[in-house]
Amino acid sequence: MSNHFADRLTAAISAKGSPTCVGIDPRYDLLPADISEQAGLNDPHDPESVVDAIAEYSRRIIRIVAPLVPAVKINAAFFEQYYWDGVEAYYELVQEARSRGLIVIGDAKRADIGHSAEMYARAHLRKPEMDGIDEMMIPDAITVNPYFGFDGVRPFIEAARRDDKGVIVLVQTSNESCTELQGLELASGGTLVEHVGRLVNQWAGDAGLLGVCGYSAVGAVASPRDAASMARLRAMMPNCIFLVPGFGAQGRGAEDVAACFKADGTGAIVTASRSVIYAYEDTKYLEMYASEWEKCVEHACKDFVKAVADVAQP
Amino acid sequence: MSNHFADRLTAAISAKGSPTCVGIDPRYDLLPADISEQAGLNDPHDPESVVDAIAEYSRRIIRIVAPLVPAVKINAAFFEQYYWDGVEAYYELVQEARSRGLIVIGDAKRADIGHSAEMYARAHLRKPEMDGIDEMMIPDAITVNPYFGFDGVRPFIEAARRDDKGVIVLVQTSNESCTELQGLELASGGTLVEHVGRLVNQWAGDAGLLGVCGYSAVGAVASPRDAASMARLRAMMPNCIFLVPGFGAQGRGAEDVAACFKADGTGAIVTASRSVIYAYEDTKYLEMYASEWEKCVEHACKDFVKAVADVAQP
Repeated sequence: MSNHFADRLTAAISAKGSPTCVGIDPRYDLLPADISEQAGLNDPHDPESVVDAIAEYSRRIIRIVAPLVPAVKINAAFFEQYYWDGVEAYYELVQEARSRGLIVIGDAKRADIGHSAEMYARAHLRKPEMDGIDEMMIPDAITVNPYFGFDGVRPFIEAARRDDKGVIVLVQTSNESCTELQGLELASGGTLVEHVGRLVNQWAGDAGLLGVCGYSAVGAVASPRDAASMARLRAMMPNCIFLVPGFGAQGRGAEDVAACFKADGTGAIVTASRSVIYAYEDTKYLEMYASEWEKCVEHACKDFVKAVADVAQP
Repeated sequence: MSNHFADRLTAAISAKGSPTCVGIDPRYDLLPADISEQAGLNDPHDPESVVDAIAEYSRRIIRIVAPLVPAVKINAAFFEQYYWDGVEAYYELVQEARSRGLIVIGDAKRADIGHSAEMYARAHLRKPEMDGIDEMMIPDAITVNPYFGFDGVRPFIEAARRDDKGVIVLVQTSNESCTELQGLELASGGTLVEHVGRLVNQWAGDAGLLGVCGYSAVGAVASPRDAASMARLRAMMPNCIFLVPGFGAQGRGAEDVAACFKADGTGAIVTASRSVIYAYEDTKYLEMYASEWEKCVEHACKDFVKAVADVAQP
C-alpha cells in the first residue's frame, strides 16, 4: 500500500466507511465531572492538574472514536494555552491517536516565511531528528495559512513530500467575518477564495505530490457558505481533498456539505468537534445515557459518521 | 506614565533615541563556537543541550542589545522546533528580555477563530492565570495573521485592551511571493494589502484602543516594497504603528524604510535580525573583533540603531 498521505487517508476512509474527522478541542470548563473532579485534578490554576485532566479526557475521546472514524484533528491552540506543559500533552496525544491507527491532522494554522516556516515545518510535520521525540508524536498533516503566498507554504510542502505527510491550506474558513478578505471580488474576476483555491490546486498538482488515489498531499480547508460557491470551488480544485469544518455545532447541516464532494463521493473529509466531544451536554444524548458521558460521545460520533456517510454517497 | 502598549513603546523609543527592534531568531548551526562547544552543549540531537545552547546565546544577545534598542522580537518558530523544551525556553527568554526593560514582541503569527483564537490569545498575550507562569513571561505584543477577518483578530484585541498589550497584524510581508495574495487588484479598486490596511486601521481606531501618543494598541507588519506604495499605506493607516521587517539581511536599505514613518518621524519601528545577531559572520565586523562575537553583535547593533535613527529624523 502506498504510504502517501492522501492514499493513507483514502484507505482509512474506506476502512471506516465514512469521510469523517473528530476535532479534539478540549476545554477544562466543559470536562465531565468524573474527570475534572478526580483527586489532584481540581485546581483550575495548577497547569499540571489542568493539563492532566484535559489530556485524560482527550485520550478517552480518542479511544471512543478510534474504531469509528478515519481521522482526528487536534487543535494546537487548546493545548498551547497551557504553555509548555500543554504543548507536551499535545505531542503525547498525537502519539496516542496515531498509535490507535487514526490519521492525525495537527490543526495548528501556522504560517511564516523562509527559515521561520521551515522551523514550523520541523515542529509540526517533519520526522523528528531529536532524541526522545518519537516519530509517532508528529501529526500526519498540518493546517497552514496562505496569506504569505507560496513562500509560506513551500517548507511544509517539502516536508510533506519527503516524509509522506499532508499540508492542508486554509482556503474558505467557516467564520462569519471571513468575507472581509476571502469574499473580496478581484479585478481579474472571481473572489479571493477562488483565487487562493486555484493557487492551492496548482501547488497541489505537482506530479511528485499526487498519490495513487489521484489526490495530492496538499489539501484545503473549505467550509461551505452556500452550495453554488462550494460547487465552483470543488470544480476548481480537483487535486485537493477538502477538510470541511462546521458540521454540527458550527451550524452546517448534512446537505450543506454535499457540494464539497465530487460526484464519486470522494474528495472531502468532514469534521465535527463540539457536537461529538461534548455530546453529554446535548439533552438528546443526556436523556439516553444520563451521566455516562462516554456513551453520549460514542452515540453522537456514530450519528455523525452515519450522517456524513449518507451525504458522501456517490 | 500611561501603561498603554503604544505609549510604552513610544516612551522606550524616545529613551533609546531610535525606533529599532532586534529580532531573536537563534539557529543552532550558526551559534558562536564558544557556546556550541561548551561541555554538554555539543550534541545536536539532544533537545536539552540544543535548547540550553540557543537559550544561552539568546540571553547574551538580549544583554548586549538591551541598552541600545527599545524592543526585541522573539520568533516563536525558532523555539517551537524544539517541541515543549523549546517552548519553555521561549517563555523564559521573554521574561529575561522584559526584565531588562525591553518591549517584547512575540513573533508568533497566530490566527484562528472563536474559541481557538481565544486560546492563542491566552497563550501569547493575556496575563497568565496559571500558577508558576510569571506575568513577565508573556510578551507585550504578538503578531497575528488577518486571513480570517476580524473574527480571527478580535480575541487578541480584547486581550490587548484589557491587559495593556499590543496586537500587530500582518499587512504587507517581506517575502517575494507575498504578491500572490497581497498584491492582488480588487474590483473595488486598490490592492488586497491596501484593503487589509484600511481594515486594520479601522479596528485600531476604536477609541478604547488609542494611547495618549495617538497610536493604537493595534499595529501592523508593513514591509516596504517600494516607496510609493508604502507612502500610500502609511497615509491610509494613521492609527497604526508599523513593524517594519527586512532591514539588513533581508535586503532593505535605510532609504527603503523612510516611507514607513510619518513626517514627524513617528509611526514605525524597524527590525533587524540576522544582520545584528549573526554579525560575527560578516567580514566587516569579524576583521575588527576576530573571535569576540559579542563585540561584533554590539557594533552591528549600534550601526543599525544609528542608521534607523538617521532615517527616522523628522
